[in-house]
Amino acid sequence: MSLTQSVLEGNRLSLSRLLTQVENNSPEGRAALIELFPHTGRAHLIGVTGAPGTGKSSLVNQLTLYYRKQQNKRVAIIAVDPSSPFTGGAVLGDRVRMRDLSGDEGVFIRSMASRGSVGGLAQTTASFTQVFDSAGYDIIIIETVGAGQSEVDIARLAHTTIVVEAPGLGDEIQAIKAGILEIADVLVINKADRPGVENTERALRTTLELAHPTKRVFRHHGQVMSIDAPEANAKIWIPPINKTVATDGKGIAELAESIAKHVAHIRHSGDWALRDRARLGSEMEAVLQGALMSQFMSEVPKDKYKEIMEKVIQRSISPYEAVKILLNGNSK
Amino acid sequence: MSLTQSVLEGNRLSLSRLLTQVENNSPEGRAALIELFPHTGRAHLIGVTGAPGTGKSSLVNQLTLYYRKQQNKRVAIIAVDPSSPFTGGAVLGDRVRMRDLSGDEGVFIRSMASRGSVGGLAQTTASFTQVFDSAGYDIIIIETVGAGQSEVDIARLAHTTIVVEAPGLGDEIQAIKAGILEIADVLVINKADRPGVENTERALRTTLELAHPTKRVFRHHGQVMSIDAPEANAKIWIPPINKTVATDGKGIAELAESIAKHVAHIRHSGDWALRDRARLGSEMEAVLQGALMSQFMSEVPKDKYKEIMEKVIQRSISPYEAVKILLNGNSK
Repeated sequence: MSLTQSVLEGNRLSLSRLLTQVENNSPEGRAALIELFPHTGRAHLIGVTGAPGTGKSSLVNQLTLYYRKQQNKRVAIIAVDPSSPFTGGAVLGDRVRMRDLSGDEGVFIRSMASRGSVGGLAQTTASFTQVFDSAGYDIIIIETVGAGQSEVDIARLAHTTIVVEAPGLGDEIQAIKAGILEIADVLVINKADRPGVENTERALRTTLELAHPTKRVFRHHGQVMSIDAPEANAKIWIPPINKTVATDGKGIAELAESIAKHVAHIRHSGDWALRDRARLGSEMEAVLQGALMSQFMSEVPKDKYKEIMEKVIQRSISPYEAVKILLNGNSK
Repeated sequence: MSLTQSVLEGNRLSLSRLLTQVENNSPEGRAALIELFPHTGRAHLIGVTGAPGTGKSSLVNQLTLYYRKQQNKRVAIIAVDPSSPFTGGAVLGDRVRMRDLSGDEGVFIRSMASRGSVGGLAQTTASFTQVFDSAGYDIIIIETVGAGQSEVDIARLAHTTIVVEAPGLGDEIQAIKAGILEIADVLVINKADRPGVENTERALRTTLELAHPTKRVFRHHGQVMSIDAPEANAKIWIPPINKTVATDGKGIAELAESIAKHVAHIRHSGDWALRDRARLGSEMEAVLQGALMSQFMSEVPKDKYKEIMEKVIQRSISPYEAVKILLNGNSK
């Protein structure tokens, strides 16, 4: 039986081997992605992001346990950790995970701790979701460890993006938060048993109101009217704020409920299809860009590239001029 | 007088206008970059990165004041903040900055708060450094607000990368730290008047020893020998750990000293030139990639692209197959 066939039938060892091939971008991995692609499009992708220290991993574990026990859904977790493989991160998180989730055949956890280009990470994440999707996982959680732009970009690949906060984080974190709030479909204040939870909630509500005004002003038969936004347009989704204590499992059922409502909303509004389209569009662009680049590099003589690069180093031509010369020379 | 001429002569208003053109990637901006490029290659680029809450902005301000007062150097600061423009980050940091540094003609501060693709941010940062470099700024500090992979990638464009830590950050932050430690040329424990500074320093030293073993084993005339690394190879740079209290200016002179030693080291070892080469190489690649993509997109019929994209959305062909079809069709 082929590796892809074995993955489609749910073999965990084959799945694990295929993910490694995909991560290494091997010819077998690429061929398998092509074969598996028609079997994708069913899974619900959930992105989880937020500043370090907010307890994302515990939250993801609890949510996974909930989906397993209450809804018998199969869950895959992709933990994207762009930090170095040589210590810390992935290992630490995985140890906690093993305790809570190990031995459950309905859960598959894979971390990507390898460094490399940001583009590479995003593309590997997209490919991983396709593998899990085709292997029949109902829910795929993409958890990003950092809180930078690239992590946010990866998390927003999902149908539902959860932004996790915690009380008592400093001003600078608040500032970063404002940026990621815009992409939140569901907000979570984790560690909600800690002091300062009211302040955090108030700050979030204020920021949310800036991003999603609850009053909309419009003209109706020439008169200026103002009504509450949800009534004005049923298509508007106001991100709910959920409070959780992940270590105790508190608030997890309510969070799952918020997520379910969001899924229903985007299925109804057409946003689910739009997000799928945007995700596949970016993926196609990334593949195209890579293919164009390697095609070009295989055609341009190495000596010529080096020679032009040397002129740039010497500051006699700029990178822009260098590229112009390369492109003209190549088309002749 | 042309805008570039005016920038070369130190006109601040022209500089500001040019940066906006570069940020918008306007034809004038691109033309100016080509004109200015031969005037670059003199500035010392310093990258500053680290987790939120470590006090990076205050540290950058104090370091800038030091370079102004003690060494009369002209300093440009590029604050890269990938978070949203609509609240927080850049504004907050800028307000602190205005208090400390405003009115000094030898300092120029520019934030990039606009969101967009990560690649775009890195490319704009590279272009900004060229503008400041050609305008005669001796030191260009690239400060990144987040702590994700993209921020790290941007900070490492520099000749000298400073990683800032603070006592008392949680486990998850420690884990991220491991990743960014690898790129540190100089380590700073800021807020060193806080409790826990010894623990932080010990943890950093342990991690550093993993990354840079102080004993090297090698073979000499057939015998296995082991000696201290710095003696074994004078080219090895062990990142020093500096302790600072940026709000009081404590430890800033010593930090400047560490930075000066690093510059002397990389000038001597040839690493300065290697880093320049790597930076210009990546920039050229990014420009080439963009040019190839826009050339391709201008040649491929829009209807055809849409039609193939639609097949991907329907899951009848995979993104890889779609790209193959696009590339073959286009070359015929």
